[in-house]
Amino acid sequence: MAGDGVDQRALQYEQTLMYGRYTQELGVYAKEEAARLREGGQRRSVGRSLDLLEYDKGRCAKCRRSGYPWVLEAPARDFISVCTVRCQKFLISRVGEDWIFLILLGLLMALVSWAVDFCIAICLQAQKWMYGGLDSNVFLQYLAWVTYPVVLITFSAGFTQILAPQAVGSGIPEMKTILRGVVLKEYLTFKTFVAKVIGLTCALGSGMPLGKEGPFVHIASLCAALLSRFMSLFGGIYENESRNIEMLAAACAVGVGCCFAAPIGGVLFSIEVTSTFFAVRNYWRGFFAATFSAFIFRVLAVWNRDEETITALFKTRFRLDFPFDLQELPAFAVIGIASGFGGALFVYLNRLIVQFIRKQKAINKFLMKKRLLYPALVTLLVSTLTFPPGFGQFMAGKLTQKEALVTLLDNRTWAKQGIAEDFDYLGHLQAWQHPQVNVFVTLVLFIVMKFWMSALATTIPVPCGAFMPVFVIGAAFGRLVGESMAAWFPDGIHTDGVIYPIVPGGYAVVGAAALSGAVTHTVSTAVIVFELTGQISHILPVMIAVILANAVAQSLQPSLYDSIIRIKKLPYLPELGWGHHEKYNIRVEDIMVRDVRYITLNCCYRDLHNVLLTGNLKTLALVESAESMILLGSIERAQLQALLSQQLGRARRMEYIRENAMAFKKCMSDPESPPPPPPVEDTNSQQRHSTQEVRFQITTEESTLSPTRPIPQKPLKPALKRPSVVDRPPEILTANNDNSGIALKNLFCANPDAEAVEDDGDTEDDMTIREIAEWEEQQLDEQVNFSNCKIDPAPFQLVERTSLHKTHTIFSLLGLDHAYVTSIGRLIGVVSLKELRKAIEGSVTVKGTKVRPPLASFRDSGTSSSENEATELHKLWDRHKSMSLPREHTQSDSDEKSQ
Amino acid sequence: MAGDGVDQRALQYEQTLMYGRYTQELGVYAKEEAARLREGGQRRSVGRSLDLLEYDKGRCAKCRRSGYPWVLEAPARDFISVCTVRCQKFLISRVGEDWIFLILLGLLMALVSWAVDFCIAICLQAQKWMYGGLDSNVFLQYLAWVTYPVVLITFSAGFTQILAPQAVGSGIPEMKTILRGVVLKEYLTFKTFVAKVIGLTCALGSGMPLGKEGPFVHIASLCAALLSRFMSLFGGIYENESRNIEMLAAACAVGVGCCFAAPIGGVLFSIEVTSTFFAVRNYWRGFFAATFSAFIFRVLAVWNRDEETITALFKTRFRLDFPFDLQELPAFAVIGIASGFGGALFVYLNRLIVQFIRKQKAINKFLMKKRLLYPALVTLLVSTLTFPPGFGQFMAGKLTQKEALVTLLDNRTWAKQGIAEDFDYLGHLQAWQHPQVNVFVTLVLFIVMKFWMSALATTIPVPCGAFMPVFVIGAAFGRLVGESMAAWFPDGIHTDGVIYPIVPGGYAVVGAAALSGAVTHTVSTAVIVFELTGQISHILPVMIAVILANAVAQSLQPSLYDSIIRIKKLPYLPELGWGHHEKYNIRVEDIMVRDVRYITLNCCYRDLHNVLLTGNLKTLALVESAESMILLGSIERAQLQALLSQQLGRARRMEYIRENAMAFKKCMSDPESPPPPPPVEDTNSQQRHSTQEVRFQITTEESTLSPTRPIPQKPLKPALKRPSVVDRPPEILTANNDNSGIALKNLFCANPDAEAVEDDGDTEDDMTIREIAEWEEQQLDEQVNFSNCKIDPAPFQLVERTSLHKTHTIFSLLGLDHAYVTSIGRLIGVVSLKELRKAIEGSVTVKGTKVRPPLASFRDSGTSSSENEATELHKLWDRHKSMSLPREHTQSDSDEKSQ
Repeated sequence: MAGDGVDQRALQYEQTLMYGRYTQELGVYAKEEAARLREGGQRRSVGRSLDLLEYDKGRCAKCRRSGYPWVLEAPARDFISVCTVRCQKFLISRVGEDWIFLILLGLLMALVSWAVDFCIAICLQAQKWMYGGLDSNVFLQYLAWVTYPVVLITFSAGFTQILAPQAVGSGIPEMKTILRGVVLKEYLTFKTFVAKVIGLTCALGSGMPLGKEGPFVHIASLCAALLSRFMSLFGGIYENESRNIEMLAAACAVGVGCCFAAPIGGVLFSIEVTSTFFAVRNYWRGFFAATFSAFIFRVLAVWNRDEETITALFKTRFRLDFPFDLQELPAFAVIGIASGFGGALFVYLNRLIVQFIRKQKAINKFLMKKRLLYPALVTLLVSTLTFPPGFGQFMAGKLTQKEALVTLLDNRTWAKQGIAEDFDYLGHLQAWQHPQVNVFVTLVLFIVMKFWMSALATTIPVPCGAFMPVFVIGAAFGRLVGESMAAWFPDGIHTDGVIYPIVPGGYAVVGAAALSGAVTHTVSTAVIVFELTGQISHILPVMIAVILANAVAQSLQPSLYDSIIRIKKLPYLPELGWGHHEKYNIRVEDIMVRDVRYITLNCCYRDLHNVLLTGNLKTLALVESAESMILLGSIERAQLQALLSQQLGRARRMEYIRENAMAFKKCMSDPESPPPPPPVEDTNSQQRHSTQEVRFQITTEESTLSPTRPIPQKPLKPALKRPSVVDRPPEILTANNDNSGIALKNLFCANPDAEAVEDDGDTEDDMTIREIAEWEEQQLDEQVNFSNCKIDPAPFQLVERTSLHKTHTIFSLLGLDHAYVTSIGRLIGVVSLKELRKAIEGSVTVKGTKVRPPLASFRDSGTSSSENEATELHKLWDRHKSMSLPREHTQSDSDEKSQ
Repeated sequence: MAGDGVDQRALQYEQTLMYGRYTQELGVYAKEEAARLREGGQRRSVGRSLDLLEYDKGRCAKCRRSGYPWVLEAPARDFISVCTVRCQKFLISRVGEDWIFLILLGLLMALVSWAVDFCIAICLQAQKWMYGGLDSNVFLQYLAWVTYPVVLITFSAGFTQILAPQAVGSGIPEMKTILRGVVLKEYLTFKTFVAKVIGLTCALGSGMPLGKEGPFVHIASLCAALLSRFMSLFGGIYENESRNIEMLAAACAVGVGCCFAAPIGGVLFSIEVTSTFFAVRNYWRGFFAATFSAFIFRVLAVWNRDEETITALFKTRFRLDFPFDLQELPAFAVIGIASGFGGALFVYLNRLIVQFIRKQKAINKFLMKKRLLYPALVTLLVSTLTFPPGFGQFMAGKLTQKEALVTLLDNRTWAKQGIAEDFDYLGHLQAWQHPQVNVFVTLVLFIVMKFWMSALATTIPVPCGAFMPVFVIGAAFGRLVGESMAAWFPDGIHTDGVIYPIVPGGYAVVGAAALSGAVTHTVSTAVIVFELTGQISHILPVMIAVILANAVAQSLQPSLYDSIIRIKKLPYLPELGWGHHEKYNIRVEDIMVRDVRYITLNCCYRDLHNVLLTGNLKTLALVESAESMILLGSIERAQLQALLSQQLGRARRMEYIRENAMAFKKCMSDPESPPPPPPVEDTNSQQRHSTQEVRFQITTEESTLSPTRPIPQKPLKPALKRPSVVDRPPEILTANNDNSGIALKNLFCANPDAEAVEDDGDTEDDMTIREIAEWEEQQLDEQVNFSNCKIDPAPFQLVERTSLHKTHTIFSLLGLDHAYVTSIGRLIGVVSLKELRKAIEGSVTVKGTKVRPPLASFRDSGTSSSENEATELHKLWDRHKSMSLPREHTQSDSDEKSQ
């Protein structure tokens, strides 16, 4: 824990970078960095400028060679430094442009995507080579076939677990919540990036039915975050929060785009999957970056001599003049509807597996201990079943996912008249052919086995997605229908003389789009499928099937990503479903909480104390007075706690004591006055006091100065339980002592008076508990001074008659957490996400992390100026807490979260 | 004007239907309609149910035939009526579902699109037939060639002008403003629909370079609005405003989708062109309706035996295996950049023509008088130049737009080695071939001529779009580059043995997408192009070219639609451009207006009066007091005017007089009291009073009861110019008299006391001007009673440090008109669209119609309950105004608009 200090700091920096909370701090950091660069990097920058300005270099080189090195070199160096400055300025001015960032992002992601694909291909080849080389002994072959993926998956799971557990899974659900404005810790760090890339490569290299789309969305976002962090060293524009959110949205598009070389589909898919409201002005960003990325991705393939020119990833060669007959449309519609049910079933199955494992506590406990056992077992099961000489022969087990897809999209008909005799045994196609078994049986087995295998495999804690497996299953299902149609109508359906045989490959395309659309609840899989196959001739069947599949799936189950969001209990706002008409009739007054916790402008500290003790909302309304109830703004809970602890804190009491002492000194001559207080038993007793009662607040005081991190609420409670004085274990006391000393020094360094008090031994804390209680009572009756308090002067307001539909729209548009309901300035209620969620879907309550609206910072902007002062203290406090009171901190922190 | 009463009412109804302002009235109307249907349509509904329930019909028919007609028919009728009721209920419950609406909309639009296409084809064929039949005499040929389009265009212009001038032009700019929440009168009426459809058919049938895309967006929106109005007879869901906005958004997608049979491109294009922020939950609506529409549209073609099966509209047959070489990409990039410049030039040229005609007052005046002359002249010019035996032979003049596009997308190479000798003279291709002139010259001439022709033709006041002409020009430009490349590299660029000749058709596709993308500032033209051609193989070149074209065009000119919005002075909020970094640094405090007009809770009527006289904002802030400045809400100007006129109005004065009279009667015996007032000169003097001074307010009083229609401000001014008493012409007085009588009766029918006063002749207005002035002064000193005033309790608030970027986002997200800037509840400034616009683009001020935010109704919702009472009066007032004071009303109305 103690070693995490630097890491913590880095993470925090990361976090601030992404969400612009501490932009001030960032500014300071950037300046420092710039200064450091200026100092240390002078020589380096000269060198760089030489590289950049070939012309100057030539001139300088000439000068140097001219025999008068000293005479000429000085002006040359001057010239160079001028050039450097100019060049730097130019670079800095350019580096802030969006398109530079997007090009870099696209380039980076294309390289990553290509490299990952390359490694995966090598891994898969290695497996094939091992399997092929051991064909003398079936047992050895089996061992090789099974061990290889088990090792890879186990490594992937272990590596991810150790380096960054956040890298597990798809990443799309997390990106969805992040783009909604929620701060997910450590989701966008370099560690996570490394873990995700390596983990994904190993996981996919194992040949398990896993996909790379979801992880690539995450990887692209990581890239964008890291790039943004890197670029912020040059320009200031990278510190802006809204810009970063826009860039993350573009990054999601790049992720999908470079994964499938599908720029348009990538942009649309990422929008559908991650956004609720989409700003059309960000559209071009996604298109630009995704196109560039897809272009580079494909160009790499051409340069690598894999391809002759840039074409689609899974190119099809269906005939263009008569792609399908109008009378085939019912079959396509059937594919769509069946895919809808299938998609819902997949999501349900996936959730069922996760919940089953979670509920079975014995299994859960065992698996928690042996974390790598579950991946290994699942991999063992799946790879055993796909072992080609075994059961795998009936389900084309030896094909990789890519090979399977290529064969499924083939434009030849596998089965004529129901018999697979005239099968063209070319390439991988023969894998589908079994001497004894019909092609239809192979296909059915493939679909059924892959279906549950994929649902199971995606629960393994490795970086993996489910899109590609589902896509392949959909293609297989489409192929099955297509082959059946081809068998049913061997000469095609068309009746006007010319024979147009049915193209089962077209059915496969339709099935792939429909099933993946049903699982992800998106329409843009249609576009992805066109871009993947390079043919758009089946547009109408695909669109019809995708829409039908979506209609069915959306009415049965949430999307896979929403399902994962619910499983992971990430904060979310459910969508208003299809045709929920009542949403127009429910009004805010029906769902709002009328008993609003508020504080008045002229309240005393006791009221503040009571309000903080009874409620647990993150922000409190500030009204003018209890009678008028005019809403003036809202104050964060932490701010109030800071106020309260300042009032009751040690510093104030010390001052009080000092004043008393002064008074005592003045009337020293007076014999009736009490004797000077005895010297205290040093820090230990002082510490005991501060851990017992309200004085404990002093340790939380530093943290409360930073408004964004709410302090634990527990410490307030001791103020009520005054009589029960329990001694802490000494080691905690010592630790506390140590750190509170540092913390105090830091806190008061701006206040020399207070420090003087601190050093002044004889005015030390000499009050008895009774005296302190009295003093506190007295303090609590004073009126609150809000002048130093950060008040959000414009919290979002609704009126009673706002409909649920509009409330939902506004909450999702602005990413609100709560809104006050007012009537002519009078506060009459409050609606939070919780009420809204309840109103939409019943009484499901979801615990989650703190929701931060993407646009919320416009409300903070008024308060951000003083944040940089608080940050240093904040960091210290962080370290302090993690070292001294980890247990209590964690507990109260989780309490805070569960509100 | 007088005859417009019913029409006005219908329009008003229309308007309320679309924007949900008077949902209450609509509900009443729906109920009345339902009652009417129940009463009158009993027999009809039985008949309908018979049609619906074939089974029952059969049974009944049997019964009837069975010889016991009376015995059996009674229960049968009962059964039928039960069925009818059940059926009706089912239908009503279903009819509210979105998908029913969307299917109907799609179906309708497909039929409209197909019918329009069919008629256009017939028109064009007729022209060709005439031209072909007269080939004996060139002069007759020329006459026929020229007269035909002139007649059609003139008819189209005249018809549109007479029936609905709103139908002129594209419609996309208007839909953009409507979707932003602005109420544009009469834009979505049945009249406009008829005018647009017929006008468009004639305009396109003339063969002028005009498009149908923009108008189809408008037609689809009209369809949606009318369908919504029709469906609201069955279900209540169609009354909701936000739903209607969502449906309009879907309709825009349908419009593009069924025009090009491009569902995906249609959805994306409509989003890019009409929305600023797009709700992803509306995505499926667009896809669903557009797909269905495109499907039906293409199925109609199959049923009509035009096509064998469903394929793309402009099918291409490029080779699939090697669509383009990597080394051709620079050429594609060149197309993109050149198209960017071309697109910007087109927009500029179009605006220049409009502005030139507007500025030249002589031309303008002349054209205003002879409205049909301009279209006729332009058509004459264009058709003369395209006359095939004349100049048209050098620019493929005899091809229609569609034919030109088909030939341009052809996959054969026209020019080998620069000479067009081995040209395949098939079909329309020979039009490009001229015996003396090179293909390149033809193409260049085509591009140059069509370019200015299209820019000119789109300024004709007929329903027309510019997308298709631009698309064709782009294709021609692409073809030109492609042919040049083919001539330059006759054997293709590829060096690895196999010869892949260059496909100029691919360049045409790229050029079409790039130029149309540049003109409209959209990326989705890429998708449209794929759907139109049915091939996606050129995806990367198209995407690269479109993005480059957009980058260039967006930095030079606004999009064509934004340009039209500016020309038409529609209210808008400019987009934040590419990489405007300063937008992050400008804060609200820099742009806000600090001198906010406000009223206090305890102000007197005089303050109200002064505020209304000095400012001209549509809403005024209500603060607690001038010292505290705590913002309580905002009040619409009209509300305040209503308050003021109530206070100073005739009704109150009458009461005052009556009270005086009572007092007078009481002290009748007292001889010192003044003699009873002489009988007034009846209504005439009363009328003069009411037209002169503040008492004039009485005539505006009814209108001010309806909060949504701000009353003219002019009438307030006479209160200042009290001494200048000018007599109105008698006819206006009489008219005023008549109507104010009606209006007053209606106004006071709820108040029998007041009516009694009205009838009571001897308490008539007998005060002198001096007395009235005194009385008014007295009244103005009273404190305002806000209890009956509709206050918006939650106006949107910002803080000083909100950045321009965020302000823009919030304004466009919520469609705000203005926002108050507060600091801890204290009002310190106001930002309106105007300031924001200025801050973004300098000091351009645009006058426009009233901006109504799409989500604004959540603020009105608290005030909607009393609207239905106001509406009747409102209507009367409307009629009254249109009959009596057309001049003044118009003037003040336009004043109001120009705020």
